[in-house]
Amino acid sequence: MTKKIDLNCDIGESFGQYKQGNDRDIMPHVTSANIACGFHAGDPNVMAETIALAVENKVAIGAHPGLPDLVGFGRRKMEITPEDAYCITTYQIGALEAFLRRYGRRLHHVKPHGALYNMSAVHRTLAEAIVKAVHDFDSSLILYGLSGSELTHSAEKIGLQVGYEIFADRTYQHDGTLTPRNHPRAMITDINQCIEQSMEIMTHQRVKTVDGSVIPLKGNTICLHSDGNHALSFSKMLKDTFQSQGFEVAAL
Amino acid sequence: MTKKIDLNCDIGESFGQYKQGNDRDIMPHVTSANIACGFHAGDPNVMAETIALAVENKVAIGAHPGLPDLVGFGRRKMEITPEDAYCITTYQIGALEAFLRRYGRRLHHVKPHGALYNMSAVHRTLAEAIVKAVHDFDSSLILYGLSGSELTHSAEKIGLQVGYEIFADRTYQHDGTLTPRNHPRAMITDINQCIEQSMEIMTHQRVKTVDGSVIPLKGNTICLHSDGNHALSFSKMLKDTFQSQGFEVAAL
Amino acid sequence: MTKKIDLNCDIGESFGQYKQGNDRDIMPHVTSANIACGFHAGDPNVMAETIALAVENKVAIGAHPGLPDLVGFGRRKMEITPEDAYCITTYQIGALEAFLRRYGRRLHHVKPHGALYNMSAVHRTLAEAIVKAVHDFDSSLILYGLSGSELTHSAEKIGLQVGYEIFADRTYQHDGTLTPRNHPRAMITDINQCIEQSMEIMTHQRVKTVDGSVIPLKGNTICLHSDGNHALSFSKMLKDTFQSQGFEVAAL
Amino acid sequence: MTKKIDLNCDIGESFGQYKQGNDRDIMPHVTSANIACGFHAGDPNVMAETIALAVENKVAIGAHPGLPDLVGFGRRKMEITPEDAYCITTYQIGALEAFLRRYGRRLHHVKPHGALYNMSAVHRTLAEAIVKAVHDFDSSLILYGLSGSELTHSAEKIGLQVGYEIFADRTYQHDGTLTPRNHPRAMITDINQCIEQSMEIMTHQRVKTVDGSVIPLKGNTICLHSDGNHALSFSKMLKDTFQSQGFEVAAL
Repeated sequence: MTKKIDLNCDIGESFGQYKQGNDRDIMPHVTSANIACGFHAGDPNVMAETIALAVENKVAIGAHPGLPDLVGFGRRKMEITPEDAYCITTYQIGALEAFLRRYGRRLHHVKPHGALYNMSAVHRTLAEAIVKAVHDFDSSLILYGLSGSELTHSAEKIGLQVGYEIFADRTYQHDGTLTPRNHPRAMITDINQCIEQSMEIMTHQRVKTVDGSVIPLKGNTICLHSDGNHALSFSKMLKDTFQSQGFEVAAL
Repeated sequence: MTKKIDLNCDIGESFGQYKQGNDRDIMPHVTSANIACGFHAGDPNVMAETIALAVENKVAIGAHPGLPDLVGFGRRKMEITPEDAYCITTYQIGALEAFLRRYGRRLHHVKPHGALYNMSAVHRTLAEAIVKAVHDFDSSLILYGLSGSELTHSAEKIGLQVGYEIFADRTYQHDGTLTPRNHPRAMITDINQCIEQSMEIMTHQRVKTVDGSVIPLKGNTICLHSDGNHALSFSKMLKDTFQSQGFEVAAL
Repeated sequence: MTKKIDLNCDIGESFGQYKQGNDRDIMPHVTSANIACGFHAGDPNVMAETIALAVENKVAIGAHPGLPDLVGFGRRKMEITPEDAYCITTYQIGALEAFLRRYGRRLHHVKPHGALYNMSAVHRTLAEAIVKAVHDFDSSLILYGLSGSELTHSAEKIGLQVGYEIFADRTYQHDGTLTPRNHPRAMITDINQCIEQSMEIMTHQRVKTVDGSVIPLKGNTICLHSDGNHALSFSKMLKDTFQSQGFEVAAL
Repeated sequence: MTKKIDLNCDIGESFGQYKQGNDRDIMPHVTSANIACGFHAGDPNVMAETIALAVENKVAIGAHPGLPDLVGFGRRKMEITPEDAYCITTYQIGALEAFLRRYGRRLHHVKPHGALYNMSAVHRTLAEAIVKAVHDFDSSLILYGLSGSELTHSAEKIGLQVGYEIFADRTYQHDGTLTPRNHPRAMITDINQCIEQSMEIMTHQRVKTVDGSVIPLKGNTICLHSDGNHALSFSKMLKDTFQSQGFEVAAL
């Protein structure tokens, strides 16, 4: 059986007159798009445009709900309750899905953003609240989360399909978490090593950690970036490499 | 055939720790609820609570989208484009509908709020954008608007069912619009006159205007208020009177 | 020499059409007012009205800056940087002070609100950023903070005058911090005990902790609440008691 | 006596992670900066950075208050009251001025932004509320407004110094107002004509209108743009031309 790999990308992060990312350039090179829903980025007009772009490019469309913190781009942890997490997730998924209806398209997945992603990776009650919000909205949705996190565990438990997200340009620690950004070897800057690590995880479901050990790690979707000079060339190279190794590059 | 009359009420207008209206008291006495969607009032947690309350009381649930102006409670006109109107309406309807899914309930109607309601009553392009947003979202929804306005005309034209909203406590002008609030006889303060005017419109589809003439005016839903001391007693009296005259008081 | 005691109160917490607290009732009974600055509560119009009220009542006027989290009322911790803390404090102090100028009045003090108050009580770098913002703005301002906290320590170090705030209705732990609200004896509900604890701290600069030990605790200002049924009667009783014991009840 | 001309520029319009304009490049080439205050653009951190940049470049610092409409960049007219206008102006001026204090610098001017600028150009009560806010804050401030508008008239009447702003790249109508942007000849695209029109106004205090007549028009400050490819080269050319004609290019 052909193995499948999904290339996902955070997109639709402009706001009002503020432009962010090269959405039009990157969209043709990804297989699923995580679209900002207005809390940490995006606004109703931007969402409408981004969805039109995703539909045009036949990309799988996901909601990318974040914390209500526009000035902090949803990257600052906030002490929210599970009830808060449930409600802001429900609100944002619904808001995004609404724009799909004119195209007769269905929502494909949900991936929490930034601090909400990180907090729900380690706090079980937040993770459970988020997956319940997704499940209550539409139990056929796929939940994207950090592979091996409380979020993916909670998604499995409630019966959602799961996107096990891995990062090509970040190193992993012995416990399967990402090496914090302030660590000198947190980032993988060599593009070949990025591709190598991705391939290792996707083929063998394991990764060599920052301290040299090897641990098991599920993966079926890789996170790409929508900005930076190398985003485009990297996504193309990744796609070519996986296809040449017999993978089908497609949404989950 | 029994004539039907709907009593609708703007509800769910609290925000964070700010409490507004007596939602719990008024809910049992209305037949349809227009729930704020977070732009002019309401927040995700308040929306979740309000919908639970509406479900419990078997009240028809509507979205009440407003302008993005929390500090002005959506009552200040803003120079938005039809595209803006389409997008903020879509966003807010979707956000609200998301909270209904856990109950297996469907959205019943949409009624624009405040300045958005007033602007779309007279500006055709805004009216058309709003009804298109509603129709694209779900063509079986009922659009509530000021009876005789551009909004209800546009809704008819696109093929939506229409809630022709009338006001018990406001006088009408010769052209069918509401007498502006700064006019000395804009408000009807006598409760019997309020009921009399409502009954006249509902029974004969006509109203006596502020200048004494009589004009035709469609009506099938009356707007109640959720706050003020008399809100509750007035809604009960209205209900009793209509029932005693053989009307069925129920959602459209 | 007569001992002085200040009664401070968080005030001006309405927003748009949302009313909060009984500002008009409580203002005559406090000696200093901490006025919300638009981030966690308050808006420009509310600030203008609140300052007019404080001026009319000859109450000392303080800025009450909070986190940018209106829906959470500034009570949810956010992972902000010291630079963020400096900037949001500067912004809010300046915004409030601007409304004083038409009256020829000067700003008297600054007291951080909610989670910003609590975070700066324990995180030294946040505390230092906040006191630097206050000091850069006007080095003659008084910084109000939890007595014995990093905030009051940092204020002393930079050379600001300090309001050592104590709570009449909260118990203290052995290390001088407030007993967390989820502890069964966190709150002092008996009004006589509230007054007794206040008097003990103000007279002897010590407090009996929740575990029965006695620790030193500086205090020169007591925090009152602007809402609740007992706020008014309690503030009057506190004032009378202190005056009868020879204290001057006045702003610092 | 040497004639003076001021080149002003709207600046500090970034927000959170969103970058806008080439502030660092344009700052050395202007004589006064209108800095966004957080309502239509800018945030506390951006304001701190922009002021540091202005101080470093010895540019006169002005507040650039706007409508509370971040998503619309303050460009959408809103039906605000004079009281609203007074309060949002006061709030934003104060917030900006606060960041100046650490440098011992004083605020130089205030220029309303976008729709607030346009609305106050034609609505006298809004104009009066804004100039009162500026005057109450500091009566030595200079008010920048569209030359010949209600705003500059109101500023003169209350006794403020006035910056009569003219536009190099916009044509004027017979009544002294700017030709609306939807008019085919609203914009002057030829750079030499821009300079010629500026020179004509500054030298002779008159302008040739879009319909060919000549009307009197005061001018002492020219509005530059901070973005676009030509912003930088145009500002240099304008500066050189005026200097070669014996003008002193400096803040008012």
